[in-house]
Amino acid sequence: MENVKVIIWGLGAMGGGMADMILNKKGIEVVGVADMGKKIGTSMFDYVKTERGNRPDVIIQAAEDVIKEGAADIVLLCTDSFTKNAFSKLKFVMEHKLNVITTAEEMAFPKAQSPELAAELDKIAKENGVSCLGTGVNPGHIMDLLVLVMTGVLTDVQEITSRRVNSLSPFGPLVMSEQGIGISVDEFMARKANHTMAGHVGFAESVGMMAEGMGLTVAEFSQDMNPIVTDVDRKSPHGFAAAGTCAGVAMTAEAKLSNGIPVHMDHPQQIEPEQVGVTTGDYVIIKGSPNVNLLNSPEIEGGLGTIAMVVNMIPHVINADAGLKTMIDLPIPRAIMGDFRNLIKEEKKIIK
Amino acid sequence: MENVKVIIWGLGAMGGGMADMILNKKGIEVVGVADMGKKIGTSMFDYVKTERGNRPDVIIQAAEDVIKEGAADIVLLCTDSFTKNAFSKLKFVMEHKLNVITTAEEMAFPKAQSPELAAELDKIAKENGVSCLGTGVNPGHIMDLLVLVMTGVLTDVQEITSRRVNSLSPFGPLVMSEQGIGISVDEFMARKANHTMAGHVGFAESVGMMAEGMGLTVAEFSQDMNPIVTDVDRKSPHGFAAAGTCAGVAMTAEAKLSNGIPVHMDHPQQIEPEQVGVTTGDYVIIKGSPNVNLLNSPEIEGGLGTIAMVVNMIPHVINADAGLKTMIDLPIPRAIMGDFRNLIKEEKKIIK
Repeated sequence: MENVKVIIWGLGAMGGGMADMILNKKGIEVVGVADMGKKIGTSMFDYVKTERGNRPDVIIQAAEDVIKEGAADIVLLCTDSFTKNAFSKLKFVMEHKLNVITTAEEMAFPKAQSPELAAELDKIAKENGVSCLGTGVNPGHIMDLLVLVMTGVLTDVQEITSRRVNSLSPFGPLVMSEQGIGISVDEFMARKANHTMAGHVGFAESVGMMAEGMGLTVAEFSQDMNPIVTDVDRKSPHGFAAAGTCAGVAMTAEAKLSNGIPVHMDHPQQIEPEQVGVTTGDYVIIKGSPNVNLLNSPEIEGGLGTIAMVVNMIPHVINADAGLKTMIDLPIPRAIMGDFRNLIKEEKKIIK
Repeated sequence: MENVKVIIWGLGAMGGGMADMILNKKGIEVVGVADMGKKIGTSMFDYVKTERGNRPDVIIQAAEDVIKEGAADIVLLCTDSFTKNAFSKLKFVMEHKLNVITTAEEMAFPKAQSPELAAELDKIAKENGVSCLGTGVNPGHIMDLLVLVMTGVLTDVQEITSRRVNSLSPFGPLVMSEQGIGISVDEFMARKANHTMAGHVGFAESVGMMAEGMGLTVAEFSQDMNPIVTDVDRKSPHGFAAAGTCAGVAMTAEAKLSNGIPVHMDHPQQIEPEQVGVTTGDYVIIKGSPNVNLLNSPEIEGGLGTIAMVVNMIPHVINADAGLKTMIDLPIPRAIMGDFRNLIKEEKKIIK
């Protein structure tokens, strides 16, 4: 069987990380990269950590020059957060009869906020005999899939608390700016009001996925964001928050499922939490039969986690029946440590 | 759509717990129970906690009188631990064109120790258009599936430690006897030598499942059991271990996967661990990128966990393509809290 052939669309921090991961795996290769502007015509190896060595070069092209029928087995789309923005790109990929995985957070469960677009994507996927998945570390794993997996050993679920206390310190200047690191509380409130504070995208999707996974629907849902004001100066590699300013964003959501189960989502994100005695970690707390009291500490690093999820899900998406998929439709995610081809069904391979 | 119709084969602690769970769920019902000896001709409601109320009675019958084509959508087989013992029963169920889930520990990954029987079961399932799964809390979830799910957010895996520190105190007289609670170290060693010490069945299956999930194979595997000798008298509802005798069994396994990854399985089982300061819990410890350091404490109770897993997997097994399945082939387990019929594909329902 030919190597699993991958095109990466969007060679930023996520797409570049996926290229590096694939370059270090067996039975899989990057055969094309799509991006825009000055990157076009340059080498993928200028943007990744892995040395080219004696590998063939991969020249970055415009999407319409690289996304073609029969050009790859799958496209990894790393350009957007919202379904409405990713939609036309996903359509473009699937109309060229290629499978696609996207990091767009809303695409982890697009029915939650864009049911019409989700139905349209499912139709396009089926018409073209390919499949489409949105995934990442969160939404896609820690605050939803892991919760569901833990409910699997429960005979009854009465209340769910999904908490992710993470550090923003590993992230670069863009995230520092998007999350308002170092801004005043007044500025935070102004940006919150005019929707220019990024916060976390994904609570509606995580809650929707958990509900559907358990055979329920979402009866009530509301979310909020508040500043994490620091008492001390905090400095991370790319961020600085003076005492009295914002060191991060505390995201929360409250939901009720159709059978009355309350769901609490709690996701404070900040730089240098250790400086103020905050222990980072991923928590799954379920009241049920039996109870679940799970902690993974420190938390799974967001960037690495998303890169891993997208690449590790490649075999499942290629093997899937045609259509729009979510993480609850496919087999469990797991690190692919052997040859990727061992996990691919022959009849589903596009490039035999 | 008709309710999901279930036959339970073996109405012991596990089968009875499944009956209770199903009696308290929506869109699913127990339509038959198979057992042996004096139970035949008596009512299922004599052996479960749920009151019959105005439900129709379910009279326990011999297997050949209840397992019939078109009699149910699925059979839950709760009679054995080993593939070779469960085999003829699984064959009998599938030749009557019914799906089946078994609690037999070796059936969680039967290829590990009985590859020929696994191939034969897959053939029988496909010939009869049904599917077959072995599952439970362990093997099936805590020491294997949960580990794999956590590797999903990792770009690389270097070493795996899967640890389950559990209490045997909730279990009854049979488990106390099987696990040698209160026997001398000499007797433990004699029973270990003549293979009458139960210990834990499932390490080979858990390691096999983890290897295959990651696209690898098992290169080396060995397991051991040793007595947990208590310094103090320990008393549980159904067990007693005087100071100097055995309060439990410490099960361990060491494995190496085909790419050299070491896997450590560590599963001490004992009565009243709290009396000697042992905190029970389920641990997933992975050296990789990033590391995983996960703890669920106290541990998921074994009995409830197995009951939940079998019932919660019913929709996935009915929906699956025909064949022998393991937990890595099917969508993620999750508690079914809504109507079971909402999760069943119409075309896969046996009793429409």
